[in-house]
Amino acid sequence: MGKDNGKVVVLDFWASPYAMRTKIALREKGVEFKVQEEDLWNKSELLLKSNPVYKKVPVLIDDNTPISESLVQVHYIDEKWTDVASFLPSDPQARATARFWADFADKTISFEGGKKIWGNKKGEEQEKGKKEFLESLKVLEVVLGDKSYFGGETFGYVDITLVPFYSWFYALEKCGDFSVETECPKIVAWGKRCIERKSVAASLPESEKVYQQVLKLRQIFGVE
Amino acid sequence: MGKDNGKVVVLDFWASPYAMRTKIALREKGVEFKVQEEDLWNKSELLLKSNPVYKKVPVLIDDNTPISESLVQVHYIDEKWTDVASFLPSDPQARATARFWADFADKTISFEGGKKIWGNKKGEEQEKGKKEFLESLKVLEVVLGDKSYFGGETFGYVDITLVPFYSWFYALEKCGDFSVETECPKIVAWGKRCIERKSVAASLPESEKVYQQVLKLRQIFGVE
Repeated sequence: MGKDNGKVVVLDFWASPYAMRTKIALREKGVEFKVQEEDLWNKSELLLKSNPVYKKVPVLIDDNTPISESLVQVHYIDEKWTDVASFLPSDPQARATARFWADFADKTISFEGGKKIWGNKKGEEQEKGKKEFLESLKVLEVVLGDKSYFGGETFGYVDITLVPFYSWFYALEKCGDFSVETECPKIVAWGKRCIERKSVAASLPESEKVYQQVLKLRQIFGVE
Repeated sequence: MGKDNGKVVVLDFWASPYAMRTKIALREKGVEFKVQEEDLWNKSELLLKSNPVYKKVPVLIDDNTPISESLVQVHYIDEKWTDVASFLPSDPQARATARFWADFADKTISFEGGKKIWGNKKGEEQEKGKKEFLESLKVLEVVLGDKSYFGGETFGYVDITLVPFYSWFYALEKCGDFSVETECPKIVAWGKRCIERKSVAASLPESEKVYQQVLKLRQIFGVE
């Protein structure tokens, strides 16, 4: 059963990895929410008014108050709905470790980073994009090691930050002609483990659907 | 009187705005710490070992455990030493607002942003750097409004994030031939207010000293 039914709204775009974070966090906490799908080429007045600084999804609207930036939203969700276990451990040192790696994942495995792969034809620029992406993912592979989740046995903040990009791996692989599983088998096994969770399964689109979207984006950006 | 004397070390560089954040946060909490000044052109083994991902200052070492990234450190300091008031308000909504603006300040008023001004001769690139810098600072000027600090009457997280750059304003003004005070009088008044605090005064270098350092950097980077 959900809480605060009808008061929480996510201004969303289904393929946005950032919006996926917010939906996963809400679902982990069992918070009911409405999704308002945005047309990113014709943004709603509500989106423009709610996020005047960046004008981007996701926006989390709780009780008519908008909050922007996905990681700010994840912290907000964690701190507002405290009846479900926190996404962060309680020990300050362990919290710092989680924040450090979530920040690293956020900076290095990003929409813009992925665009260096799918937004370029085969060639030097795409190779550079693949190299950067895989180098960062390999760092995270080592950090994950043989743990179930980044924090150990508990799905948490780093997982929420990174797992949306798992739904983009297939599109990146198809565009860049490589295999994430070959390069980072533990990350792929972790992604499969995460997607078994209801919160993640309900928030991540099918890989094929993301790939079709990427093909549309490649047309729009004149990549092929 | 300080706490945990001798156990806390900051791997520092005096002109680093990021390291200033960490020192301000520690001083606000009354935590005694040792400063180990780094030569950024010849980094210590301890720095390279403590921050293998970025190899950058500041590193906060507490009880032999290193923590990297200044905003992760500020959160850590806030959550470890809880006997002094938190840098963040208690209300989840207000915390989200603080995190949003600290993140905005962190992304837009940065060493790299400043370098677009001091790292270029007069001309198009420098003008672009000035425009970006002032546009972001004007957004923050409006957010600050007539409040004493970004959070209201209490010096907090956004102030700690932004105020180190106040010590760089003079160098940017001299290199870019403009006046921050003319463009953003409330921000400058806020900076003067912040520097009256012992924590800030002890952590920010003299503006003239920063300017001399910037002149050295301009020589190193061949700007003039």
